[in-house]
Amino acid sequence: MEKIRRNERMSVMMKILSGTPGRMFTLNRFCELFGAAKSTISEDLDALRRVAGSFDLGEIETVTGAAGGVLYRPLRSRESSLAYISDLCRELSGSERVLPGDFLYYSDILSTPEIVNRMGEILATEFAEKKTDFVLTMETKGIPVAFATANALGIPLVIARHSSKVYEGSAVNINYVSGSGNIETMSLSRRAVKENQRALIVDDFLRGGGTARGMVDLMREFNVSVEGMAFVMSTLTPEKKRISGEKSLMTLEVVSGEVPEAIVRPAKWLEA
Amino acid sequence: MEKIRRNERMSVMMKILSGTPGRMFTLNRFCELFGAAKSTISEDLDALRRVAGSFDLGEIETVTGAAGGVLYRPLRSRESSLAYISDLCRELSGSERVLPGDFLYYSDILSTPEIVNRMGEILATEFAEKKTDFVLTMETKGIPVAFATANALGIPLVIARHSSKVYEGSAVNINYVSGSGNIETMSLSRRAVKENQRALIVDDFLRGGGTARGMVDLMREFNVSVEGMAFVMSTLTPEKKRISGEKSLMTLEVVSGEVPEAIVRPAKWLEA
Repeated sequence: MEKIRRNERMSVMMKILSGTPGRMFTLNRFCELFGAAKSTISEDLDALRRVAGSFDLGEIETVTGAAGGVLYRPLRSRESSLAYISDLCRELSGSERVLPGDFLYYSDILSTPEIVNRMGEILATEFAEKKTDFVLTMETKGIPVAFATANALGIPLVIARHSSKVYEGSAVNINYVSGSGNIETMSLSRRAVKENQRALIVDDFLRGGGTARGMVDLMREFNVSVEGMAFVMSTLTPEKKRISGEKSLMTLEVVSGEVPEAIVRPAKWLEA
Repeated sequence: MEKIRRNERMSVMMKILSGTPGRMFTLNRFCELFGAAKSTISEDLDALRRVAGSFDLGEIETVTGAAGGVLYRPLRSRESSLAYISDLCRELSGSERVLPGDFLYYSDILSTPEIVNRMGEILATEFAEKKTDFVLTMETKGIPVAFATANALGIPLVIARHSSKVYEGSAVNINYVSGSGNIETMSLSRRAVKENQRALIVDDFLRGGGTARGMVDLMREFNVSVEGMAFVMSTLTPEKKRISGEKSLMTLEVVSGEVPEAIVRPAKWLEA
């Protein structure tokens, strides 16, 4: 095999590590891939760590010991996250996206991969220290951002459904009060989670918090602790939600009038 | 600014390009980021292209001209794709995952980011030349893999719903015959797609093809052409589906008996 240069080794490791966040790779694996000594790989990784830091590309973490190795976390600086969300808020504000009933159309934003991935990285940065085992969302619109957050954390996504399906096996069902005041059902396959796991709830929208409350109750049925709750957008009213301690990326206020206007702002915690 | 070395520039560009597949970056942008000359960046990119090729990490494509630049496509070799899907088939085969009614439990696979992203790359490789404008899926279980495919292609995801929602604005509804023989409704917001666009349909499961047929009909209502259809898994029976020309990653056969057993195989086209 032709000798592989440092710039090639570093580029390949950057691609492999950043392509599977949270996954641990042994140094031996890279030694074999490149036919290089462990000391060489260690030096490469030191250089990669520095360059990822100086260009705000996330963190490359080396874990020592027998079960050790190296892994990548797509953690973003607060400054760049705020700038990104602020741009998004400008795009969503105004009258064009307001629908009858003062709803805001932003389904397109919620399924554009580049935007959704960035939102997932911002949420992952905020909740990385909670060491959660999976991300939970309730179908449908929050699934892409919940998936992106799970991807950034390197953990699975779990999707609660409106009703239990035959192809999910036995399920736990609970009832909850939806935003429109109706009693609805939320269902999750028994196989989907294990007792004593730690959950991060991610969804697209928070108004009264009925659905979120339902997810919290559902997790209690599984003896799973909820370590965090994150939303893409939450409304300013009602101020009092059925849950507390959540973090949203943006807040929404719709000002009524002949032409209703949406005012979308970055959440306060992003400015801290 | 301290001078940035080639290995640093290459690692940073690999991360930025591979992190947003299909997105074009001008060379000027990298010149500014690194304070380097265009010729230097061009040489870096040549080296990156070679290394991505030799390690099966996808393609780095340079487009010349005024609107030109460089972009990344996560295209995978057929050989590595077949090996990956074959491993997955072994994991899904057997009696453990068979549910009453000869359904197969694989929701966990469908929401594990690393697996889903790889499936998305394999499908993107297969359909990249179709130059599609968006990926279409029908809620719920196929959303993660459809999102991953859209991400790999650098195009948006569009999600059809069972019923139109107030927060989606005006919608087009169609009726279709589901797998269980019921008449169901499929709904898509008018704002979601534009006339004369090109769609790639991606979903988790294909049995009779009723839902897929519904998606094709829905696209006709929008004057959108369907350029491809892809599924994670399709059943061997019924052999005749309501659609044709689709590609699945795996085929499923459930052998009845005291203990029903699932036989999951890689699709034939992967072996070609």
